[in-house]
Parts: sequence; structure tokens; C-alpha cells
Amino acid sequence: MYRGEAAKVLAGAKVGERVRIVKGERSYEGVLMPRSELGDDRHVVIKLDNGYNIGVEISGARVERLSPAEPRRQAAFPEPEFLPEKPEVTILGTGGTIASKIDYATGAVHPSFSTAEIINAVPELADIARIKARVLFNILSENMTPKHWRRIAEEVVKELNGSACGVVVAHGTDTMSYTGAALAFMLKNLTKPVVLVGSQRSSDRPSSDAALNLIAATRVATSDLAEVVVVMHATSSDEACAVHRATKVRKMHSSRRDAFKSINAPPIGEVREEVKLFGSYRRRSEGEVYADTRLEERVALFKAYPGVDPELLEYCVDRYRGIVLEGTGLGHVPEQLFPAIERARDEGRAVVMTTSTLYGRVDMKVYSTGRRLLNLGVIPGEDMLPEVAYVKLMHVLAVAQDEEEVRSLMLRNLAGEITPRTLPDTFY
Amino acid sequence: MYRGEAAKVLAGAKVGERVRIVKGERSYEGVLMPRSELGDDRHVVIKLDNGYNIGVEISGARVERLSPAEPRRQAAFPEPEFLPEKPEVTILGTGGTIASKIDYATGAVHPSFSTAEIINAVPELADIARIKARVLFNILSENMTPKHWRRIAEEVVKELNGSACGVVVAHGTDTMSYTGAALAFMLKNLTKPVVLVGSQRSSDRPSSDAALNLIAATRVATSDLAEVVVVMHATSSDEACAVHRATKVRKMHSSRRDAFKSINAPPIGEVREEVKLFGSYRRRSEGEVYADTRLEERVALFKAYPGVDPELLEYCVDRYRGIVLEGTGLGHVPEQLFPAIERARDEGRAVVMTTSTLYGRVDMKVYSTGRRLLNLGVIPGEDMLPEVAYVKLMHVLAVAQDEEEVRSLMLRNLAGEITPRTLPDTFY
Repeated sequence: MYRGEAAKVLAGAKVGERVRIVKGERSYEGVLMPRSELGDDRHVVIKLDNGYNIGVEISGARVERLSPAEPRRQAAFPEPEFLPEKPEVTILGTGGTIASKIDYATGAVHPSFSTAEIINAVPELADIARIKARVLFNILSENMTPKHWRRIAEEVVKELNGSACGVVVAHGTDTMSYTGAALAFMLKNLTKPVVLVGSQRSSDRPSSDAALNLIAATRVATSDLAEVVVVMHATSSDEACAVHRATKVRKMHSSRRDAFKSINAPPIGEVREEVKLFGSYRRRSEGEVYADTRLEERVALFKAYPGVDPELLEYCVDRYRGIVLEGTGLGHVPEQLFPAIERARDEGRAVVMTTSTLYGRVDMKVYSTGRRLLNLGVIPGEDMLPEVAYVKLMHVLAVAQDEEEVRSLMLRNLAGEITPRTLPDTFY
Repeated sequence: MYRGEAAKVLAGAKVGERVRIVKGERSYEGVLMPRSELGDDRHVVIKLDNGYNIGVEISGARVERLSPAEPRRQAAFPEPEFLPEKPEVTILGTGGTIASKIDYATGAVHPSFSTAEIINAVPELADIARIKARVLFNILSENMTPKHWRRIAEEVVKELNGSACGVVVAHGTDTMSYTGAALAFMLKNLTKPVVLVGSQRSSDRPSSDAALNLIAATRVATSDLAEVVVVMHATSSDEACAVHRATKVRKMHSSRRDAFKSINAPPIGEVREEVKLFGSYRRRSEGEVYADTRLEERVALFKAYPGVDPELLEYCVDRYRGIVLEGTGLGHVPEQLFPAIERARDEGRAVVMTTSTLYGRVDMKVYSTGRRLLNLGVIPGEDMLPEVAYVKLMHVLAVAQDEEEVRSLMLRNLAGEITPRTLPDTFY
């Protein structure tokens, strides 16, 4: 991990080893830590016995290797015992804060996702279900791609068609709602709960939301629900978790524990000691679940704003089969973009309008800009979140037979992503 | 306006004329309306005497011209009289719902923005100030461009350095917050209030918010404030308006009257009968206001999401001097974008990170993705809204001498756009 001058001075010492760095009259003793990502090759970092890390400038320094790295105590936890009458819940690890543990010897983050480790960290889970945990992969959620969505969908199907009563997917929070939407569109004939859960604060912090979120998610996985949902803190206290429909939820704060909000729809449930489900939802039933994991990846999410360069949209029309516009207000974009949108129509691209306000519904009949865009073939995205419309368009372009079917599927509520218009909502 | 077959049948009849359309045994009499934008050339639209519009299919029809269009009664309102002791407030019209009036004779929307028309519509304004209204232009706010921002800034300066006590800018709501941010960065040594106001429902609707918003905005224009603010409904009832700092406000609903919300900061005031200002704000003072209207227009606002095409960012690096990233969570983007960001740095582009969560602050030191991005020279956007950071970067790239000054200005609070970190906010 160290390179250049630092590597020379270390003379083969490995991260995790106990070393002494002697520099003139001074010496520093501790565990060699990984190089700081922002560090140059002139410093090495050690953790002192008092717990602090220090960086030592290595010019004129000499390193003594004291003792090898302590072997990591994997699976040091006892195998948990579960009551046979409890339902079985599978927890799939994909990465993110909730699945990470900081190794205090080396400062490295590594996945902690064996069943034994999870039950050791959150013993309450054993009272709810027979937990079966495994890691699919371990990535930060900003690095999730459609390839990962497909893999998760396939693994969820295996579990649901096996002995699991429900599945919990532990996931980084940054793009959890994209993955949730993708699962909601891909999973067909869903008969059991699929619950995404994450944490905003890692489990080494006193304010961590990891345990409460995981307990609530596991409860929901044993509930009567047969939908894809996100379960996260409902408030900034530790009182309750909210159950959000995966196609209606969005991360609305960078750091708060109650960052996830249902937009344009209320949450569909709340978890305290028990799971309470509200309103209408799809109920648990019998039958095989399957996944249609086809996704057209040549889709772009395009934000419109004053001064936006029409050439950028022309570039998208050249490259992509579908474009979701994040417009303004009721569904508008600057008229400088109209020529590109007209060409998109002429070249058979699907163009869907959503709004940067996030809240509220697109209504393109109120103002002339909207009417002109409708006339250019733009599909109004109703009250879909821009991010959800993007994932839906990837799905729809892959499964529809022709342009007409693309349009009709985009306008139809497939997985709770469009709230039905009960009243004409521009009329109140 | 009509063309093809419809134009032939109309035989020269103009929109606004009274006509009779005879079709076999039936005939329809009314005022000829403009062609529907979505209409073909086989229908003409007339407004019947009962007020309804109908479209008549013209095959086999004959049109009789009954009487010419009534001349539009411009300036039919009496010139208002103002009390000399009242302060003077200039209202500048730029377009949008608040400045539009539907002509019931022809259905056309036209600006209604003479002082006399405004006082006729909202007589309460005369109790607050000597109103002086004029139209700068009349466009839908989705069509605002940096060119319009400059024009508004220049006109505002003229008014403030003249006899006006404050200026109200009537503006469409879609991009009002962009214009507000642009004015906040461009106007220097501001000594009086600049108030943007709009309406979400046009004044022909019973639920219109136009009058209350305009009254509240005019009150704020006479207040002690010397900042650029947005004044709009505070709730969905007609009780109060909120005063939002222009660099902290965002349109958060497509249709509600209380769509505008201050993000990451409370509103700085409330207007009921009186204007109440809260917290710390810049106070009215003496002195010349001036505008620095330089803007670098080669700036893009780039949204990052799972599956985003790195080529799209490469294209932006080729074309623009500045890129504001709308990342995820604490300020992350997929690592597939890193090569483009590295090239941006190498080619001297400014890259600024903001977050799609809107609420909360970017903190790029918590996770490895953020640290790697900092190492690639990305400037953390603190708690700036993505749209505000975009406008600010246009301003900063135009005024800064070098890359170092771009960075330092982007990190400095220039016009209320960055909330100071009082406590390290990842530590709660």
C-alpha cells in the first residue's frame, strides 16, 4: 500500500504489523496503518497505543519490525441458535455503511456479514426470524450499476422461491431508491416482501441507525406485504421506522437518519414493536416469483435549466434510445431544447417529462410550453420521481414491442410509481 | 393563424371577429378564436355567447363574417392617485403567470402590466406604496437565459439608484430561484430590497395567489431588508407569505401555492399585515448599488446516477469551463466518472460537488469516494443547492483571476448561499 520513499523505509513491514519508527532522538511505536489516501510517499501512519493515529515524515527515519499483524479473528462468534417455529428471513449484503465494520487494528473497512456476526451485533433479530445472511457483493452504493440490480433481482427470486418468508437487502443509502425501483419493476408476481435497508451512520457510532433499521426491516420481511419497500428511520429519534414503497421514496437529506421520504404518497407502513401497514398494498400470497431483468441501458436522465446547452441534448439524442427530462414546474423545458426534442421524436427516441420540484404532478396542458412539448411527442411522467422514471424507462424500453407500447406502459402504473389522479389536481 | 383548409373556409375572417359558421342545417355563431395549438387544419374554434369554446369540423362549412374584432381596450383604467408620503416601489414585469391576463374575447394571454392595470387589479397596493410599474419583457420563466438575468440586474440597479425605495420583480415561478440567485451574486453593495414574486395560479382563478403575493412583496420592498429575496405563499391557505433568501429557495411543488421552500435555512421573514424579519439579515443603508453582470456561460449542471454514461461527462469536460455535479448522499458519484473528472482537473476545469438530496451538507471526508474526489480537485459545494451552485459558478468563473480564486470564492459565502458550519454537522 505504501510506495516510493515510504516503501523503502518500511523495508517490507506490512500494514497491521507492530513497528517502531526511530527518527534521531525520537521514536514512535504502534501498529502500521494503511497509507492515507491523500498522503504522499513521504509519510507513514501508525496507530499509537493511546488510539491516536499519527503521520510520521520519513526522511532520516528507520523502521524496526516488532511483531507480525495479529491474524484477524474471523468467525469468532458462536453459531447462533434459532427457534424452529420462527419464519426464515434471508439478509443479502450488497455493501454500504450497514454492511461495513471498521477493523480497529488496521482502520480498514471490511464486510461483516456472516449470520453469526449479524446476530452477535443485533441479537434481537433472532427473536424475529431464523436469519440466513450472505454477501452478494460489497460495494458503495454510488457504484451500483444495472448489472448489480439484475444480480440482486435474481438472488431475491431464488430466496423467495426457496424457504424464505421474505428477503432483506442491505444496501448503501446513496442509490438505494434506484435499486428499489429497479427491483419493483423487474420482480413479477411478487408474493412476499422484499425490503431494502441501510444506515446513515455506521455501527461504530453511538448515533448509529443500523440496528433499529435492521430489526424493523426484518419485521417487515415477515409481514403480510408483497411489495418492494425501503425501511428506514421515520424520525431523527429512535422511535419508529417508516415503510416506503420503493417507487415513491427518495433520499432527501445527506446525513440525517430520517433522510428517506415518500414523495407524492404517504408511507405504506410504520414499524415500532409491530409492523402496521396502511392504505392499500399488495398482500402476501402463494406462487412463484420471477424476474424480468431486461433493461435498456441506453437511457439518460437529463436536467433542464436556464442556460442549458441544446448541444448537450442533441448529443443525448444521438446516443440514447430514451431520455427522461427533469424539467421545471408542471413539466417545462427552455424552448431552445425543442429542436433536439423534435429530432428525438423523428428518430424514434422515447422522451419522458418529469419535474425538478419532485413534489406534485406534471401537467403539460396548462401552459403553452407543455402543450408544445406534448405535440412533440413527449410523454408526461405524471407524478413519478425523475429517478424512478429513469429506471422505469430502462425497463419499459427493454420489454415493449413498439413505440406505442412504450408510451402506454410509461403512462400506466406498473409498481406503485404513479399515483392515480382521483381529482384533477390542478383544480384546487 | 389558421392554415390549409381552415384558412380557405374562413375566407379572410380574423381572430376576434364575430362569425357564423353554417354547416348544412346547423349554424354556430360566436367570436373566432385562435387555432388550438394541437389542432389540425380541419377545425376552427369559436367562443359561443354562453362562454364555451367549440371546435367545428369545416368540411362543407361556410363562414359568414358578422362584425369586426372589437378593439382591445388598453388603458381603460383610470390613472391611480397615490399619497405623496408613501414610499416609491417599482414593479418590473418579466412575464409568467403573475403578469399575464387572459383576454376573454380571444383567449390570448397578454401582459397586463401598466401601473393603472395593476392598481385596478390589486387596489391594496396603493395603500402601501406609490407604485411605478413597467414591463422589461414578457416571457415564460422556463425561457429565461443569463442574458435576461443581466437585463433585470441592470434595470434593478437603475431603479434602486433612482427614487425607488425597493424593487419588485414579477417573474414566472419555474426558474424564479435561478434568477434570484443570479441577482444575488450580480448585485453589489445592495442597500435596498429586491423582491422576486410570482404566482402559481393565474388571476382568473378563484384560488389565485397573485394578489396576496404581490401585496406581500410590495410590503417587503418597503422594509428594512437589503437582500434579494423571493416572497411567495407560506402555506396553502391565504394567511401569510414567506420571505426566502434567494440563494436558499427552491420550487418544491409543481402546483401548490406554497411551493417555494427555504432549504438548509429557515425563511428570513414572514408577511401578514406587517413584515416580520427574523435572524440576521443585511439591513437597508445608503449608497450606490452596482451590478457585476459578467457570467461565464460555459458551465453545465451534471446529474450523476447509477448507469450514467461517462462519455456524457467527457463531452462536458470538452465543452465547458465549469461543471457542477449533482451527486448522491454526502457528495459522491460513480467511480466510472473518475477518469473524466481527472481530465477536467488536468484541463483546468472547475468541478463543484453538490447533492441530489437537496437537504443537508456535502461532506466528502467521510467515505472513500468523497476523499478520492477531493483528491481529484473537486470543490465541495457545502450546503449549496445544485441550481444555486450552477449560477454561482457562472459568476465566479467570470470574475475570478485564476483557479485558486475560483476555488476560494466557491468555498466562501458570498450572498447567503452557504450556511456557516457552526458545529461539525456529521457529528450529531
